[in-house]
Amino acid sequence: MIEELSHIFKSPAPPEGIGDDCAVIRIGRQQMLVSTDMLADSTHFSHIMSNMEKGRMAAAVNLSDIAAMGGRPVAMVVSLGIPRYMRRGDISDIARGINERAVEFGVRIVGGDTKSTQELTISITVMGRKTGRLLLRSGARAGQILAVTGTIGEAAAEYSRLERGEKPEKGSRLFNPEPRIEEGILLSKSGISSAAIDITDGLALSAWYISRASCVRLEIDEEAVPVARRLSGHGIGSTRQKEIAYYWGGDYELLFTAESREALGRVASRMKTPVTVIGSVCKGEGVYSRRGKKKALLEERGYDAFTGKKIDS
Amino acid sequence: MIEELSHIFKSPAPPEGIGDDCAVIRIGRQQMLVSTDMLADSTHFSHIMSNMEKGRMAAAVNLSDIAAMGGRPVAMVVSLGIPRYMRRGDISDIARGINERAVEFGVRIVGGDTKSTQELTISITVMGRKTGRLLLRSGARAGQILAVTGTIGEAAAEYSRLERGEKPEKGSRLFNPEPRIEEGILLSKSGISSAAIDITDGLALSAWYISRASCVRLEIDEEAVPVARRLSGHGIGSTRQKEIAYYWGGDYELLFTAESREALGRVASRMKTPVTVIGSVCKGEGVYSRRGKKKALLEERGYDAFTGKKIDS
Repeated sequence: MIEELSHIFKSPAPPEGIGDDCAVIRIGRQQMLVSTDMLADSTHFSHIMSNMEKGRMAAAVNLSDIAAMGGRPVAMVVSLGIPRYMRRGDISDIARGINERAVEFGVRIVGGDTKSTQELTISITVMGRKTGRLLLRSGARAGQILAVTGTIGEAAAEYSRLERGEKPEKGSRLFNPEPRIEEGILLSKSGISSAAIDITDGLALSAWYISRASCVRLEIDEEAVPVARRLSGHGIGSTRQKEIAYYWGGDYELLFTAESREALGRVASRMKTPVTVIGSVCKGEGVYSRRGKKKALLEERGYDAFTGKKIDS
Repeated sequence: MIEELSHIFKSPAPPEGIGDDCAVIRIGRQQMLVSTDMLADSTHFSHIMSNMEKGRMAAAVNLSDIAAMGGRPVAMVVSLGIPRYMRRGDISDIARGINERAVEFGVRIVGGDTKSTQELTISITVMGRKTGRLLLRSGARAGQILAVTGTIGEAAAEYSRLERGEKPEKGSRLFNPEPRIEEGILLSKSGISSAAIDITDGLALSAWYISRASCVRLEIDEEAVPVARRLSGHGIGSTRQKEIAYYWGGDYELLFTAESREALGRVASRMKTPVTVIGSVCKGEGVYSRRGKKKALLEERGYDAFTGKKIDS
């Protein structure tokens, strides 16, 4: 669908057009980053989320797209589609949630729109500026290393708690994703990284996006993947754990490349979030999981943001 | 509602924040214009509109906001909320409609999002650049003249045709609003204008927005208002005609100020769209309709874009 739309729109190739986390456009002499995300109640929000959380999440997923390019977010416009059954106070709470994240990252909310719709719909566009080297899906080069911020499976662990009927954990990443803005900027400014993506669609599918856009093979060391401790602590077996780490999605961490372990070490020491080297960029194509001498091709599947459901093809 | 949201968002005063047709933001050293509009099927589109027309309209209402600031639109991002019952071909048609208008005005579609929603929702953000003097709702000064592009009541005339069960007229302004981009740019570049707004909410309400933002009184010569010929030609009496011209809305013409008739004459001669001087900017407050020596305060009412309905307070 996105391919068909890109074709109809005659969108320029990324990063100037559709196909990366942000588009890089030129207004006058200035390059800027822009990205947009729409979230709808029936598809993207859980009924147990508070209105504040819905607002916070809508802001965060947009900010994460700027993070994945190594940019600094500057301004946002916010459109709210509001159903008849929502009260004024609910809408204010959504706005408060959006504003919290905007303030936290120094982003100004400069415009928006409010319209009557059948279900709650939050559409945000975020604009930002380049800070250094652009981090592109097409930027990976053979010889680089592959790394991720934070841990993988936090969103899945929380989802699994809720499935078991447990109370939601306050501040859990499932409803409160953390855009890795400062981490992206450090990578971009240092010049040691040339490719990044946020892994909301799952580690495997996100790696596939980089592999295809960069025409490289990615190899992931299965045992190096930093799986959320909460995941292993809840009786989830290791096959299931592997399935979740590769295919589940919902984590807003950055998967990125770097020139070397040494270079990354120097930059990572300035980050608040730990980073883990999980593999390497090689000549070839596809995404492989390796364990000892065994290599297995990872499937090109993950979370489908369109329907809010997993692609279990 | 918008006031409450502006407060929660701590949005800067216009034109840097919420409250004019666009926000003027700074990315690096560059000032740029940004605006966003969301349209939903149940609220903003007629069931007799084709998918192409829905797409064209969504693009046009966004472009009109750039026109009202005197800007040049540069890029757009397009989010589509797509209900299950829509076929792929329908979505392509919407995209084609959006693209037609983008191409026409030299605007690149650089990004977007597609999500599953309960009803068709089109959310577009348009970015542009300043071309000259900014045209602001707050820019009107006593001593200036007041003018409009085109004619008023085109949308109402078509609506009235449809109400009578007649076939829609091809290319009618009701479904195919015409953003006055080149007209706005000529006004902005020439420096003869300091205030503009598009009159989608109706002439009276739009004039009230300028009056309040600029702290001036606007006086409109009732007989000078260029009412659509189609409106008078369909047996609509003059009281009804006046009601429509002032309060109906749906026309995407520009209401603007200019330094003098002479200055406007020079600039207007380079426009494809006729402009008509309809009144003057005076010290004081409020919006008045004058006919001979009689002056009557116009009501502060018009079209409500939130619900897609007229405010008949």
